[in-house]
Amino acid sequence: MIRVAVTNPNTTAAMTESIAAAARLAAAPDVEIIAGQSVRGPAAIEGPFDGALAVPGMLARMRDAEAEGARAHVIACFDDTGLDAARAFLERPVVGIGEAAMHVASLLGHSFAIVTTLSRSVPVLSDNVARYGLASRCRAVLASDIPVLSLHDPRSGAPEIISGHIETARARGAEAIVLGCAGMAEFARTLEARHGLPVVEGVGAAVGLASLLARQNAVSSRQGVWARPSRSHLVG
Amino acid sequence: MIRVAVTNPNTTAAMTESIAAAARLAAAPDVEIIAGQSVRGPAAIEGPFDGALAVPGMLARMRDAEAEGARAHVIACFDDTGLDAARAFLERPVVGIGEAAMHVASLLGHSFAIVTTLSRSVPVLSDNVARYGLASRCRAVLASDIPVLSLHDPRSGAPEIISGHIETARARGAEAIVLGCAGMAEFARTLEARHGLPVVEGVGAAVGLASLLARQNAVSSRQGVWARPSRSHLVG
Amino acid sequence: MIRVAVTNPNTTAAMTESIAAAARLAAAPDVEIIAGQSVRGPAAIEGPFDGALAVPGMLARMRDAEAEGARAHVIACFDDTGLDAARAFLERPVVGIGEAAMHVASLLGHSFAIVTTLSRSVPVLSDNVARYGLASRCRAVLASDIPVLSLHDPRSGAPEIISGHIETARARGAEAIVLGCAGMAEFARTLEARHGLPVVEGVGAAVGLASLLARQNAVSSRQGVWARPSRSHLVG
Amino acid sequence: MIRVAVTNPNTTAAMTESIAAAARLAAAPDVEIIAGQSVRGPAAIEGPFDGALAVPGMLARMRDAEAEGARAHVIACFDDTGLDAARAFLERPVVGIGEAAMHVASLLGHSFAIVTTLSRSVPVLSDNVARYGLASRCRAVLASDIPVLSLHDPRSGAPEIISGHIETARARGAEAIVLGCAGMAEFARTLEARHGLPVVEGVGAAVGLASLLARQNAVSSRQGVWARPSRSHLVG
Amino acid sequence: MIRVAVTNPNTTAAMTESIAAAARLAAAPDVEIIAGQSVRGPAAIEGPFDGALAVPGMLARMRDAEAEGARAHVIACFDDTGLDAARAFLERPVVGIGEAAMHVASLLGHSFAIVTTLSRSVPVLSDNVARYGLASRCRAVLASDIPVLSLHDPRSGAPEIISGHIETARARGAEAIVLGCAGMAEFARTLEARHGLPVVEGVGAAVGLASLLARQNAVSSRQGVWARPSRSHLVG
Amino acid sequence: MIRVAVTNPNTTAAMTESIAAAARLAAAPDVEIIAGQSVRGPAAIEGPFDGALAVPGMLARMRDAEAEGARAHVIACFDDTGLDAARAFLERPVVGIGEAAMHVASLLGHSFAIVTTLSRSVPVLSDNVARYGLASRCRAVLASDIPVLSLHDPRSGAPEIISGHIETARARGAEAIVLGCAGMAEFARTLEARHGLPVVEGVGAAVGLASLLARQNAVSSRQGVWARPSRSHLVG
Repeated sequence: MIRVAVTNPNTTAAMTESIAAAARLAAAPDVEIIAGQSVRGPAAIEGPFDGALAVPGMLARMRDAEAEGARAHVIACFDDTGLDAARAFLERPVVGIGEAAMHVASLLGHSFAIVTTLSRSVPVLSDNVARYGLASRCRAVLASDIPVLSLHDPRSGAPEIISGHIETARARGAEAIVLGCAGMAEFARTLEARHGLPVVEGVGAAVGLASLLARQNAVSSRQGVWARPSRSHLVG
Repeated sequence: MIRVAVTNPNTTAAMTESIAAAARLAAAPDVEIIAGQSVRGPAAIEGPFDGALAVPGMLARMRDAEAEGARAHVIACFDDTGLDAARAFLERPVVGIGEAAMHVASLLGHSFAIVTTLSRSVPVLSDNVARYGLASRCRAVLASDIPVLSLHDPRSGAPEIISGHIETARARGAEAIVLGCAGMAEFARTLEARHGLPVVEGVGAAVGLASLLARQNAVSSRQGVWARPSRSHLVG
Repeated sequence: MIRVAVTNPNTTAAMTESIAAAARLAAAPDVEIIAGQSVRGPAAIEGPFDGALAVPGMLARMRDAEAEGARAHVIACFDDTGLDAARAFLERPVVGIGEAAMHVASLLGHSFAIVTTLSRSVPVLSDNVARYGLASRCRAVLASDIPVLSLHDPRSGAPEIISGHIETARARGAEAIVLGCAGMAEFARTLEARHGLPVVEGVGAAVGLASLLARQNAVSSRQGVWARPSRSHLVG
Repeated sequence: MIRVAVTNPNTTAAMTESIAAAARLAAAPDVEIIAGQSVRGPAAIEGPFDGALAVPGMLARMRDAEAEGARAHVIACFDDTGLDAARAFLERPVVGIGEAAMHVASLLGHSFAIVTTLSRSVPVLSDNVARYGLASRCRAVLASDIPVLSLHDPRSGAPEIISGHIETARARGAEAIVLGCAGMAEFARTLEARHGLPVVEGVGAAVGLASLLARQNAVSSRQGVWARPSRSHLVG
Repeated sequence: MIRVAVTNPNTTAAMTESIAAAARLAAAPDVEIIAGQSVRGPAAIEGPFDGALAVPGMLARMRDAEAEGARAHVIACFDDTGLDAARAFLERPVVGIGEAAMHVASLLGHSFAIVTTLSRSVPVLSDNVARYGLASRCRAVLASDIPVLSLHDPRSGAPEIISGHIETARARGAEAIVLGCAGMAEFARTLEARHGLPVVEGVGAAVGLASLLARQNAVSSRQGVWARPSRSHLVG
Repeated sequence: MIRVAVTNPNTTAAMTESIAAAARLAAAPDVEIIAGQSVRGPAAIEGPFDGALAVPGMLARMRDAEAEGARAHVIACFDDTGLDAARAFLERPVVGIGEAAMHVASLLGHSFAIVTTLSRSVPVLSDNVARYGLASRCRAVLASDIPVLSLHDPRSGAPEIISGHIETARARGAEAIVLGCAGMAEFARTLEARHGLPVVEGVGAAVGLASLLARQNAVSSRQGVWARPSRSHLVG
């Protein structure tokens, strides 16, 4: 079996479980998912301040997952929180669910749009789109303004609100949709059927890519920004 | 089993076999590779003229592969020859080995360089890099000027020439290497070990991505350029 | 006399005639237009699948035009179908009507918009705009959703629909309009008068540019992607 | 006859004559060149300070050329000095030799390089390349550091120095060369023959484009930056 | 005391006074503002034609300001009229109010929008945004279509019209507002309070930046486009 | 007096003192610098792992500085570590020394190059250059490979090594130099005199910009990514 660690950078156990379920659905038969969460930090990551506080606890959990035999990592927050720090710190390759979803969406649609939770995340995600080089492929980043932890509360009306944004995105020329939050993974297949265009959620995309890397025994390049740090004893 | 069709757009059977071997090495245990080649056209694709002549015969083979149960396709030429036409024409999703290698390389290195065969391919590949949005991640596209069909002739000195280009690429800041020709796939692991930085070949990367798409029953968006053509009876 | 070949890549003779008329209107007194069409392939080019099937027959016609003394070529499809293959294959320089219209429009307006026929062409044209480097000058690519072969059917209402899109383009800041289909050439002067802003059609623009190149005995560079192919006997 | 005004923005009559000769060589048989120069200002344009002082006198000459029947204008300085002001001020369309050469070069080579006179012009030309949208097509802007007015002094060794830069440009991947000064026009054919790749000089390219615009009675868009000024009585 | 020259490139004395007042409000206690205006040229700069005519007279005034002890310069027109010519011609560093406002706005908002006076300025400002590299940070350039010289006429309704554009900009995702005309400086604080987001006017921003440069005895680089001209006796 | 907090995100007191000295040199007479350092974390920030561990302790110190009356903040690490988190968390505006140096350098040179300490920082800084929109202005990011904490050790030969890189940068067309590490601030004036081109260090640039913002009572926009966090009690 190939072990792939899926780490939720926030500290909400219910969200970790829902992410783990999405990850297992997407895994090949020889891939075992080991899911975990940040050992300390905020209950949800809503903006760069939460992100900054979440990273040390997330790195500690990811180090433990390597001790448990993980051969590749998934960071299960659509902001790709702490991705560069994780690549430098860890032995094995790391895939963020945000980058994974965008790369996969660019295979299924000539252009895509991201539908995310909070307005304040829009600039962060736009920066990431540009950083990954996919700005010319991204028609819009739309926010539903549903708090992450309310996505599965039936009173939030989340699937209907997201549906409305999918139609807005289509009108702006998006050919595929990226769901911009780990918590939206379970809506993907239903939305795809309803709207008749590809809907990509990042957990499955990242598990697929991390498995691909693990299968080839790939490791992150140490030539540049991901060179191993000299002070790694500081974590924990 | 999930069937993934790997189609060589040129008509050289020996190259199809070597590509099939690389594809099978990279496949998950539940993925079956069905390899084939263009039913007519040039023996190698060296530039856009060869590419234009290869596409009709490649599409005919890919249609047959769907009749044989393929749930996703790989086009095994680093130029991603005929990718848009194939996505429009075929039922199932299509991944080019060029785009696959670049997306995967961008997970393993903050930047990458492509080492390809012929100088005349450099502008085509540079255009593709830009079209996929990855220009800011690509440090160089270098040509070894070895004809595709001589790559495995020991007298060509191919691995040594490619090694030289890898060191040039590293000096220009590339953190990962993409091998820019389907025929180079088997050199990847040796070069990675020799140079100590990630070396990505496109066949394995594309098989991984196509498997990921097949596993999720994904299909190409029909909202835009890949809408089904009205005159598809013309192929064959 | 300077012979300029204008080649319609589809096989519809009526369209070739209308293109030839537009070409002759734009030609200098010492320029002779020799118009022709693809020797086999689709009746219209609506998307990349049609384009892929049209190229071999178009190249065969263009080779014949050189035998007839053509000193420069125009490809009369706004997608610039097969442009790179044609430049590699042919002795004389080649101008696509899409690129020609965009370059000329950028001399007449600080920005432009393209009004084309089919929605599915929008991503292809957007890619071309970017490939030619003119993305920062292009405010919009708008589709009228009139099939190419119905443009001149009075029941299609084509001129009125195009007029509506011109006003949309102006509202988005476009200072000049590019008509995005060879079949729209004859509407240009009327629309220009009606809307009071430059309206550029590609056939005339390309004839002017091809004449300019022919007059200087220019040839395509053979340094890169347009190096002569080694297998050119395959066409026909 | 179609009158095309070619205006030298500096006040050196010998340079005007050499520019007029290049313009007449490139003109179609029905095009009459009326050449002139700035009515006051610097003897050469070497940098933005000279450019700023040259524009009022150049606009006065161009207004006179319209009174003499000019139906299109060429500004014969590779910096495209005062291009926006001229388009706003004048009735008829205006083409700069810098933009003309770059657009034409992009039809003959997948990429180009500019070989100009002074180092201090390099940033100006790089800005223009970017403004015209052609940055991705331009491999280098190289300066020969020969003063404009010494180009034709045999002691300057200008053709040999330019030849050296052409080889540098080719090594950097340029497929076509743009000569970056009106005074270099007469070297173009010789250099093209010597180096075996397209060499574009701007005077001929601009005369061809201006003739194309004049033939179609085109005018500059008045929708934006080139709207007619309200204070045009100030010139002169 | 550190003398900073603030030069209005038009010839309207009332506007110079209002600019001087805004400059003095923003100056540190050890900074003395010496305000002046173009010695000849248009009464307002509305488009590139006015700009071209204004530059020689503006340079003459700036040279005089250096004779009066100026250690840094501000050009008080949002078009940054003549900025390159001024940097080449003058001893001391030069800051345009357009560039200053954009750089400062990018510290206060992740993105910004410009609200300017005339529609015809929109393309000029868009070009400047791109030239300064800030295109990815600029959501919109909106024109209020109030003539510069009517901004302070109560009948123009200028503050209300600008307020409307600020709300449009916010709806397009702008997090900060740049006032795109020297004459709007005095509205900044009121608009900031009314709309609850940063409103940056260029005169204060440029005075701050010019003071910073003067305090460090900085001078413009002479390595490239701003090398000192050889014909500087021509001004005046 | 206007209080500006300058916060060193690492925990090395000697470096804080040297930064404070550079800040005081650059401050206007009415600006008081209050210097401090991260309350816990790594002794130097060499790469994203160190950066991630430094941010929580840096935010705690910056919050304390606001309690001491700071009206604007400077983050004194050239990586601009934690800039978005700080802008969201703090009341007053925040300037990173990296962004400050780049914005100021773009006023003094048409292009610039960054000379930094470690190779592993090059990709981080390249990303920042792109994120701030200044990629088209940046000719190179060069690393001296001197550890931050050895810069002032005479045996490191730091000034000579940096001088060598400045000449490399000039040869690549850079017109101004940015020193890419807070610890290099004191070398700036000497290097500027030696090389005859502008040398910008970030501490002074950031103090100037932070003073400018404080003087205008500016605050960060709360419209987007810098909206105040809901969980701010988590710091400390």
